[in-house]
Formats: sequence, structure tokens, C-alpha cells
Amino acid sequence: MAQHPEFRSSLHPPLDLSHHFSQTTKNRQSSNVKGLYKWFQIPGMQNVAGGLPHESYFPYDTLEAAAARPSRFDLPDSSKGKNNKPAEWHVTVPKIQDTTDILKKIDLSTALQYGTAEGYPPLAAFIRKLTRDHLHPNIPYAEGPEIIMSCGNTDGFGKVIEALTNPWNKTRDWIRDKEGVLFEEFAYMNAVQTVQPRGLNIVTVAVDADGMKASGPGGLADVLENWDFSQGRCPHLMYTVTLGQNPTGSTTSIERRKEIYALCQKYDIIIIEDEPYWNLQFPSSRKHAAKYRGDAVQADLFNRNYNAHGRSSGYEFLDSLVPSFLSIDVDGRVVRLDTFSKTIAPGCRLGWVTAQPAIIERIARITETSTQQPSGFVQVMVAQLLLQQQSSPAARKATDKDNLGWTLDGWIQWLEGLRDAYERRVHDMCSTLEEGRTVAIDKPAPAAKHRRAPSNGGLDSWSVVSKVPMYDFNWPLAGMFIWIKIRYDTHPLLEIYGAEKVCKALWLFLLEKPFLVLCAPGTMFAPTEAIRGRASKYLRLCFAPMAEDAVTDISQHFVAGCRAFWQLENFDDIPGLDDPIMPEMMGMQMC
Amino acid sequence: MAQHPEFRSSLHPPLDLSHHFSQTTKNRQSSNVKGLYKWFQIPGMQNVAGGLPHESYFPYDTLEAAAARPSRFDLPDSSKGKNNKPAEWHVTVPKIQDTTDILKKIDLSTALQYGTAEGYPPLAAFIRKLTRDHLHPNIPYAEGPEIIMSCGNTDGFGKVIEALTNPWNKTRDWIRDKEGVLFEEFAYMNAVQTVQPRGLNIVTVAVDADGMKASGPGGLADVLENWDFSQGRCPHLMYTVTLGQNPTGSTTSIERRKEIYALCQKYDIIIIEDEPYWNLQFPSSRKHAAKYRGDAVQADLFNRNYNAHGRSSGYEFLDSLVPSFLSIDVDGRVVRLDTFSKTIAPGCRLGWVTAQPAIIERIARITETSTQQPSGFVQVMVAQLLLQQQSSPAARKATDKDNLGWTLDGWIQWLEGLRDAYERRVHDMCSTLEEGRTVAIDKPAPAAKHRRAPSNGGLDSWSVVSKVPMYDFNWPLAGMFIWIKIRYDTHPLLEIYGAEKVCKALWLFLLEKPFLVLCAPGTMFAPTEAIRGRASKYLRLCFAPMAEDAVTDISQHFVAGCRAFWQLENFDDIPGLDDPIMPEMMGMQMC
Repeated sequence: MAQHPEFRSSLHPPLDLSHHFSQTTKNRQSSNVKGLYKWFQIPGMQNVAGGLPHESYFPYDTLEAAAARPSRFDLPDSSKGKNNKPAEWHVTVPKIQDTTDILKKIDLSTALQYGTAEGYPPLAAFIRKLTRDHLHPNIPYAEGPEIIMSCGNTDGFGKVIEALTNPWNKTRDWIRDKEGVLFEEFAYMNAVQTVQPRGLNIVTVAVDADGMKASGPGGLADVLENWDFSQGRCPHLMYTVTLGQNPTGSTTSIERRKEIYALCQKYDIIIIEDEPYWNLQFPSSRKHAAKYRGDAVQADLFNRNYNAHGRSSGYEFLDSLVPSFLSIDVDGRVVRLDTFSKTIAPGCRLGWVTAQPAIIERIARITETSTQQPSGFVQVMVAQLLLQQQSSPAARKATDKDNLGWTLDGWIQWLEGLRDAYERRVHDMCSTLEEGRTVAIDKPAPAAKHRRAPSNGGLDSWSVVSKVPMYDFNWPLAGMFIWIKIRYDTHPLLEIYGAEKVCKALWLFLLEKPFLVLCAPGTMFAPTEAIRGRASKYLRLCFAPMAEDAVTDISQHFVAGCRAFWQLENFDDIPGLDDPIMPEMMGMQMC
Repeated sequence: MAQHPEFRSSLHPPLDLSHHFSQTTKNRQSSNVKGLYKWFQIPGMQNVAGGLPHESYFPYDTLEAAAARPSRFDLPDSSKGKNNKPAEWHVTVPKIQDTTDILKKIDLSTALQYGTAEGYPPLAAFIRKLTRDHLHPNIPYAEGPEIIMSCGNTDGFGKVIEALTNPWNKTRDWIRDKEGVLFEEFAYMNAVQTVQPRGLNIVTVAVDADGMKASGPGGLADVLENWDFSQGRCPHLMYTVTLGQNPTGSTTSIERRKEIYALCQKYDIIIIEDEPYWNLQFPSSRKHAAKYRGDAVQADLFNRNYNAHGRSSGYEFLDSLVPSFLSIDVDGRVVRLDTFSKTIAPGCRLGWVTAQPAIIERIARITETSTQQPSGFVQVMVAQLLLQQQSSPAARKATDKDNLGWTLDGWIQWLEGLRDAYERRVHDMCSTLEEGRTVAIDKPAPAAKHRRAPSNGGLDSWSVVSKVPMYDFNWPLAGMFIWIKIRYDTHPLLEIYGAEKVCKALWLFLLEKPFLVLCAPGTMFAPTEAIRGRASKYLRLCFAPMAEDAVTDISQHFVAGCRAFWQLENFDDIPGLDDPIMPEMMGMQMC
């Protein structure tokens, strides 16, 4: 889809937000490397300036892969599998591709050479167009955003934090200089651990099923209006995962986004939107949930990425997604993080940052003195997967005419197939959890203790069968996670052990035979000590890591484990219950 | 070569240098991720904790490459070339390799999954052994060093600076807290630009042909003894490239290292040794230089990596190298940066950091919240190049028995072949420069003006033919660079234009037809404004970027350009001479 210059030209440019830049970021010199191009481009110019090894010294003559066709997920089950021929083709990156068009030159002589911070030109150009014209066709500031390739979202976030925060040291800095970052009250700890060592305030905002709350107790307005300046500056950054939030699985509607964005404008806050799960949205979850819960099927309340007032992405699938904060970002105060970790593979360490040009320019300067660029190995393999041309030597040699890159159409087809596959997983896990959610116990529910004993009964009469829920959860509308609220209040041993110990005992009990289920304890997602107690009442389940046909079985193991746990007479046989509260879990990364 | 426990056990452990850690680094929590392994390792354990996509969703089913045999450089010229079959074999990484030994499991199910900060286990284990037992077999502290994989040396250096320095802000910090980093007076600007934005002092140390000077005016002792505390803290870090220094090409002998190390002990300085060119050492340069210069062939004054008092690396080639600072690092105050950029390809963005364990542990924590790990694509392709087993499915299918990884022997063979190839380049460029170093000019050398005019002559008698040198240089003993000192003092137009303009005019003149040679101007390597004027009298030539058989021809272009420049009547036709002093050169990266 072509750019619509008339759309952009009616818009205001993004605000100058350079007052958010850290001192280190302000100090970085502008790079004028482009000034050199005028000489590089002169035919016959011999470059003895750069310390670039000649490509004949690279020990790789090609890079190749057997790769999926974008239709792999759409094939009938019988033809799927890890090495089935129909869904596979051969990607080949030659040593030298004869073209002077740097956007079409996909070869090892360029990809394995030093490159530019923005990314490998053919890939960066593809991502830039994808981002500006298709993922977010309605970004409301003039000229639109820029992108820069990153080594995944953790790297992208690290650079954004470097760009926008000054470290604070209590032994030498004034409290008034202490900066703060807003997080969901249950959050991805790796992001928290990026911020925390810099000595900044970690400020939590209450969440509900729609993600971060704008209003109400503990909501964003409450936090900002009642900011205690004795703790430092009012937070000027927000970290948020709005789609399939990690760990709660929540999804933030466009209405909620508008409320939050207005507050961020009022308090001059930059929003860092980390969206690894954005493509994994599950519209069917509401319908399936309603079947079990007996709720009426809710109307889909979300505005979509495309609506009557906006421009289409050009793809029905992309139009159906919940729009990014970028879609309402009139000020240019949104920095968005995207990654290939969940759409290709985590080991790529490849993603991109999208924001107004002045912010991307500063991140490029940071990149030049840190990662320089993502590895050429992954950049070129992804570029060729998407863009392999018929005219490449490899393709010319091929016996079939089918060795063409996925192109944009193929990428979108892949994403939709992937989404469908995860949607089946959500269904399998959530259905199993729904069906096993209650347990019959032959002891009274704890609530019974507040009732008067029946006048005609002795001890025996307490021993009625009672059906109680063991956990609550919401069907996720996106992402990879189900956030399980442990109903410790229904456990017969609550009064003996207390809530926290019941929850810890459940986590440990599930690890034992025959259940053997390793869940993520809620404490792993507590950004502050204040949240820790509340977080300990949750478990996070992920429906991604197992084979697709194992989701139901593993979910049944979980249910069976819970059921057995609710039948326990005591916790005497649970190993580790009196150890410190799972300290090793605090360091678990990359989840 | 096996470890020699008796060697290690006689040594003292490294010093506790944690007082060098930045506040941010001190604040980082220890990671106890290993505590989780006890559960991961239980057979049958179902992991629903981690947000790990299943490998069946990765679109790559194999990664493959046509790769060189380690003997490629040793083949006769006729069989070389970019696609010659005899020197090529096929690397294949399968989707799943059936083994439970994580050091032998080289497949996409592990390499494209989330990993650990230390690096991909099979590769990290190879590098650790290479480093400890072979590259630096004589590190003199107990238990020896640790390593962590990096995304290349710029990334490694960035993390080390993050670990060891606090940013300083003149508007809010005391001058006494301002830290400083020592650099060679001509230095790799990307390293300077990593430090500078943090507001630290960039402190330069004079250099000679042996690299950083320990004594004498401007040498390290002079700088430290006379440190002006009104500028901030005495520098506590040193950045140095000791082999084939960029840009001067100098190499630091073991005697000089000992002097510098003793000063670093006295002043408690951590040495960051950046050695991309360490494997490219050219013992023949002394002999060749002597041939032209008429000097006696100097005895090789270097102690080598192996000597009578130390342990051998196990390889003659490695034993012949100048030892690292690590070899004399009794305190554990050396942090060494290694990279595959010059031995495989810059686009790898892959290297490693070597240092005492406590420093590596902190860098691992930084890695967890920045790059997480280098891309699995490059880690697995390098691992398989080195380690491919006969037992892999790909190898079993192969018709020949030759599809085995290089192994350590092959890696050393490759390095030696690569070194030989660069040694030929040094010879070709330096010989050409030697042979064209002087020019006959029909004007008197400027020095003549200080002599009295001959009593019997008029103006005409000045116009004698005079043979003058146009530049000086040293034959590099390592690296990729020749540091050309422009002999502006012999240029006939010196008095009219002055030294700086003569040098700038030469650089611009070489860019014009028919010479078309783009050199790196010396100003690109001036860490401070104070050095800039001196640096402007140099050019850096690189003998790496062209095809091997083009080195002589390009060097001749350079000589011819110099010669024509020394014949000019004026600089009227040189475009850009009055533009600001090449500001765009300040931003040239990655060289």
C-alpha cells in the first residue's frame, strides 16, 4: 500500500520530547556517517579507510535453510510435522548477489560485513514499510515514525531506558532527581530488573481484565494525582504490555488506551509499549468462555486497527487486531517494541523499535556504541526468507519455480496461521481448566465456620460433600499465558497453614510425581515487595512450550494435581515448604 | 590440553576489585536461575512456567552453509576462489539432535530457543577451553578466568564500561566524582564515543612504535604521577589495543606490558584489552622492513606466549604470539575482549569477554537485561562449523566421510592461514609504499630557506632537483593498518598553506581522479581536541578491504597520488579545501 501524503500532511509534527533524554543521551554526538557516502558512491573509489575484511576471507560461502512455507499452519494435520516436504523450501543466501540496489542485494558480502545501526538495508526497509503502512497505518503525526532494528525487545527496552533515564544514586544524588517508571502491578520481571539497578522508582499501577487501570483506587490517575514527591520525581515513563500481558494475559481496549494516553499527555509521560504477543490475538476466546461461564456472548467491544475513520492496513488480519498506542499517538510519545521472538524464534534476538524520528535517532547513536547491529546471520536469513528473488543464482538453479521468498503476503499468512495455532492451544488449556475447576471435598468449605453448626449435628454432620472452585482465571484474548488465581480460601487446610503457605504448597505439590507440572509462581511477577504477598496467590500457566497435541494432557495433569492437593490431610510430605520463599525464582529470566 | 590443577593451586585468587563496580552494577541482583535446573532435569517434568514457543513453530527446519575447509588458505592459488569445491564442505544444523548432552546438542530446538547469558553451551564451552588452556595457558591467578559470549567487542566494551563506570553530570555531580579512562593518544574512536557521553574524562597517553608509553613525557607514569585532581578522580580504567593498534599499527612487547601493568597495580587501574587483531601477527615484517631501511635485522625482542617458564598452548602458532596482558595478570585486573569479526566476519556480531569470575558474573547480569545472548543463528552456525559430529543426521546422510567440524586443530589452522594471507598483504602494501616513498621535486626543500643563499646564485639556482620523502611509516607487526605520517615539511607549498592545510589537501586530492583513494584521515582518531592538530598530520591505510591481488595496485594509486600532489603548483583545483575540517569524519563508525 502506498503512502498517503495527503493524510500525513494534514497532521502536526510530533512534540519535541528531548527534555526526557538522559544526560548521557544528550551528550552523544550526531553521526554524520552519511557524509561519507558521496565518496563511497564514486565508481572506482578504492576504500582503504575502513578496517573491513575482504569477503573472500569469510569462511562461509553460502548460508542456507530448509524453511517452512507460509501456508504450513493451514495444512491438514496429516501433512504437518517437522520435516514434511510439501510445506518446505530451500532458502539460499549467496556469497555475492550481483546488483547495486542495496535494498535487493541480499548476500554474504554485505550481510557479514560491518553494517549500519539502523539494520540490514533489505530487512530494515521491509520492516519500515510493514510498520508504517500496514501494522499502524493511522499514526497521527506528520511524516510518521521511524524504526531501528534491535537484538530483541529486552535489548530494545534496555536502549530506551538508557536513552530516557539517568541512573540515581542515593549516596550522591538529591531525591528530587530520582526518576520513576510505571509498571503494571504484576509485570515482566526482566523489564523491572532493567530499571531497578539504575536506582529508579518502580511504580505500580493496579490492573484488571483490561490491563492497566486508568481510574479507580491504584489506577493511573490515582497514582499520578497523589504522587508523593518525597519519593522522587513524578514518573515520566510507563512500561506496558497491552496485548496478552505478561503474566496476567490481559488485553487493553482502545477506550482504555485513550484514557491512559490522556493522562500521559497531562503528566508528560512517555509510553513504552512492549508487544511481543500482538499478533497472537484470539477473538474466539470470548465466545468459548461464554459457553462455560454461561455469560451471554459479549459483543466485541474493541475498536480494531482499522475502522470507518481510518486507513486500512491492506490485510483483513491486521485490520482485525487491537490498535497499538501508536494509533492514537498525536504527540509522538509512544515507543513501541516489536520482536521476532514469538513469530519466528526467540533465539533470533531480532526485533525493532518504532517511535518518532528524534527518539529513533538517539537509539541509533546508542546502538553504534553497543550492539552496532543485530547479527548479520539472522538478519540475512530472515531477509531472504521473506524476500528471496527468482533472479538469485540459487533460485535460477532450482528445479522448481517455487523458491521465492514469502513476501509481505506470506508473512501475514504465517502470522495468521500462527495465531490460529495458539488459539487452538488457548482453547485446549482453558477448556480443560474450566472442566476441572471445582472439586468435591468431604469437609466443609471454610466459609462454613462462620455459620452456626446445625443444631441437630455432631462432628460427623460437618462431613458433607461440598463442591468448591480451586482457582479462577480469565480466558486470555491474546498472548501465551493464563493467570490462575488460587482459591486458597476454599482449601480445607487454610486455617492451619494460612494463605501464602497453601499457595506455596500447591506450587511444590504440582512438581511432585505423578503430576510433574512446573508452573511459574506469581511471586516471579511482583515488581515490588509490596506486591509480593498478593502475587503469591497466583500461578502463571503458559500454553506455548509443549507440542500442540500435549496441551490438553498437561492441563489435565495440572487439574489432577490441584484436585489431589485439595484432598490432602496435611502438607507434611511436601518437600521444601519451610525453605525460604522460592528465592531462586526471582532470577528466572526470559519467560 | 588438560588443565594442570597443580599449576593453578599454587596461585593466589584474584583480588576483590568490586570497588570498581558502578552503582548500577552493584545494585544488580544475583541471579539464581540455576536453582531451577533441579526441576528442569527431572524426567517427565512438564514446563508450563516459561514463555517458550515450541520449536515446531519455528519456520526454519535446518540451517546450513557451504563453508571453507580450514586448509583453504594453504591451497595453491589456482584452486582458491570463492566457490572452489576442494576447499568446501556442507555444514548442517538439524532441527533436533538426539542427545541429552547439552555440550553436544547442536540443533535448532536449542539454538533458536531462549538461552543463557553466558552463551550457547556447546560454543561457550569450546571458547572457555580455548581461552583458558590454549590462548592464555599462563594466567597467574587461582582457578583461572571465566568467559562470556558477547555481540562483538563494541558490545563487550559497552558492557564493561556499564559495569565499571558511573555516568557523571556536571550540573549535578561533584568534580571529585568524575571518573576517567586512559586511551592511547591516537585511538579507535568508537571506544572513545562509548565513554564520552557518560561525561567521563578521556585521558590520553603518549605512544611510540611499541604502543602506549610507560615512561617519559606524556607516558603513563607521567600522566598518573602528575594527575590534576581538579579534573576529577585519577583514571581507574585503561582502554588499550596492544596488537596492531588501531590506528597506529603498533604492538606492545612483553617488557612494555610489565611496566604498564606495574603502574596499573600501583594506581589500581583495570586494564581493558581490546584485541580484534591478536591472531594477525606478522613476524616477517621486521625482516622485510630491514631490507628496505638498511637496518640490521632486529632480533625479535618479544617474549612469546610460551617461554621456558610457562606452559605451552599446545600449538606452535599460538605459542608464537605476543602474550596478552592476561599472562601477567596476577591481580585479575585485566578484562580482555575477543571477537570473531576479523577471523570469521564482522557481521557475526559475536565475540567474548575474558576476566576474573566476579567481573564476568556482573557482565552476565548486564547481559540478561540487554542483549540476553548473541543471536542463536550465528552461535549455532559457528558452533557447527567448529564441532559438527559424524553422528549428526546430516553427516550420516552425507556420501563422503568428510563432513566433520573443524575442531580446535582446524580453528588454529584457519587462523594461521588467515595470518599468512594478511602477512602477504602487509608485504605488498608496505613494499609499494617503501619503493615510492620519495619524490624528486624541482624546488628546494623548505629547509633550504634557513640556509644562506649561495653567494654566487640568483633565483634560478634554487631550482635544483631534490629528492624528499613524502611520508614515513613503520611496518606493522600485527593488525590491518599502516599509520602514515605525512611529511608536509617536504612539500614545496608548505609555507603558503601551512601544515594542516597541506595534509587536508592531500587527503582530498587522493579522492580525485585518477587516484580515487579514500584514506582515513588522522583526525578520525583524535580522542580529544588537544590531539586533533597532531592527528591531522596522519593518514591511516588499511590493507584488508580489497581483493588480495589488488593490494599492490591500490598502493600504487596512493603513491602516484602523493607524487602528483608534491608536484602541484597550488591547491586551487582541490575541491572542499575551505570547507570545515571534515566534520563528517568524526562520525565514521566501525572501522
